[in-house]
Amino acid sequence: MTSAGGPIVCATVNLALDITYVSDRFDADDVNRVEVVHAQAGGKGVNVARLLHHLGWPVVVTGFVGGNVGREIVGDLDRCGLPHELAGCSAASRRTVTAFGTRSATATAYNEPGPPISENEWTRLVAGLDGCITGASAVVLAGSLPASAPAQGYRQLAGRVAAADVPLFVDVPGDALVEVVDSGKPVLAKPNERECAQALRTGTPLSPSQAAEAGTRLRADGATAVVVSLGDRGLVAVTAERRLWARPPAVRGNPVGAGDAALAALVHGHLTGQTWAERLRAAAAMSAAAVRQDVAGVVDPVDVAELVSQVEVARL
Amino acid sequence: MTSAGGPIVCATVNLALDITYVSDRFDADDVNRVEVVHAQAGGKGVNVARLLHHLGWPVVVTGFVGGNVGREIVGDLDRCGLPHELAGCSAASRRTVTAFGTRSATATAYNEPGPPISENEWTRLVAGLDGCITGASAVVLAGSLPASAPAQGYRQLAGRVAAADVPLFVDVPGDALVEVVDSGKPVLAKPNERECAQALRTGTPLSPSQAAEAGTRLRADGATAVVVSLGDRGLVAVTAERRLWARPPAVRGNPVGAGDAALAALVHGHLTGQTWAERLRAAAAMSAAAVRQDVAGVVDPVDVAELVSQVEVARL
Repeated sequence: MTSAGGPIVCATVNLALDITYVSDRFDADDVNRVEVVHAQAGGKGVNVARLLHHLGWPVVVTGFVGGNVGREIVGDLDRCGLPHELAGCSAASRRTVTAFGTRSATATAYNEPGPPISENEWTRLVAGLDGCITGASAVVLAGSLPASAPAQGYRQLAGRVAAADVPLFVDVPGDALVEVVDSGKPVLAKPNERECAQALRTGTPLSPSQAAEAGTRLRADGATAVVVSLGDRGLVAVTAERRLWARPPAVRGNPVGAGDAALAALVHGHLTGQTWAERLRAAAAMSAAAVRQDVAGVVDPVDVAELVSQVEVARL
Repeated sequence: MTSAGGPIVCATVNLALDITYVSDRFDADDVNRVEVVHAQAGGKGVNVARLLHHLGWPVVVTGFVGGNVGREIVGDLDRCGLPHELAGCSAASRRTVTAFGTRSATATAYNEPGPPISENEWTRLVAGLDGCITGASAVVLAGSLPASAPAQGYRQLAGRVAAADVPLFVDVPGDALVEVVDSGKPVLAKPNERECAQALRTGTPLSPSQAAEAGTRLRADGATAVVVSLGDRGLVAVTAERRLWARPPAVRGNPVGAGDAALAALVHGHLTGQTWAERLRAAAAMSAAAVRQDVAGVVDPVDVAELVSQVEVARL
């Protein structure tokens, strides 16, 4: 393990401008007037970085930015006081759009695919990440890769972190999950239900036992611990010692970013040496608190404090 | 009437960056990956200007732009060779997002409300419009106003055009329609079905006769002619001499921007002295051709040529 006190590197290769539209309701196949617009730097790793920053941890955000949308992303990171070591790309950064209707508490999300990345740009990103890893307390690899990134891109990035012997946390798409776990030997992999179903070659919903089964396989592939997020049915953890299921109270709101809040809590719990029951309880509470917020990367500490005592943690 | 040969001023106060997402399908209340992203300068007047530009008319685009999104709008106008006389605003320009699923040929649109506008900024916009009007062949006032624009903002703009004795074409929201017609005495008002229903204080759908009734009322308010767009049921025109109904062939595609294509054809028809039957036939064909395009402000001339002979024009 590396020296404590260094920043937590939050790498989201495919950084985005996250646009959230909030209205009473949105109707499909119709023209909708948006009441409230939020636009902020996004991508899973940025959401994790925001929450870790609020918990008092030093963070660094890395990933690609380009064009006018890239300028908006950088502007927001600066406004929020989130340090960054970004790699430029000649194409414009992507946006994501989430339309959240408060009456039904449902969200429709549209994720743009991300900019084309040249070989040189990829090389610069890897070099930049190498520079950041040195002295880091932890690295979070989260989110998708641009479609044009190298096929083994995630394997390469995870391998660099493993070589530097820095604790690695991963939340990557299902198709990259096994290669990242294999090459990066993460202290934690945090797939969601859909990603596990993809790995198990089955459908959703997964039972908590099925989620634990997927977690066990990922441990065999090289992850020290696995936490599977099952949405409003909570979190299933598989560690060397046990299988736990944390069930949060029912909350209404925008689920986008809930998984990132759980991951931030799990990173925090790892670095502070919490027990697994404590980590899961905090992660489920953070996740539920994030659902209550219109935008990702934010929780109200009052909500977390209220919800944490309502989380039920049991052995599976 | 002013001298011929001057540009057609296309004023869309609430300019936008129009983002269009195209995929095979989009599911409400789910996370959707976007296959194709289009981003271009938009707002009804910009779409009209694009089409008039392609028809060979000199145009000038006016409206507010601000912030990074404003820079994207200006960049696209420049790329497309569309001249502009824009007014700056300190807040960021708005976006619109349209998610178009090709399999069902349905579109869900999200329109941001537009930037807050200060009194000084409004004054500069009006002065800029005054400068453009002089020597213009026509003025098109189209689209919504930002929510913070003066309550009588559209009355003021239309009045300036009327005072300059330049032919005015209007396609404005239902709540501004009567005041614009009253103060601007447009040669043409082009409301859609919903706007007419709002003016008649009734619901949709409107029959062609009801649409004509709404048109007659708007003529009494000061419009020389009125064309009501009824979506895929075509266009109803009310002039001093007659009432006509133009029915296009059925087409599949993205209806966003279809009304703007009709308006461009009607401006073209006015300036070239077409008969009303010719204008309506061309407008219905342009509108149907626009539906076949994924993005607004574009038609394929081959489509227009194919469709124009299939439009049925009849007296009402």
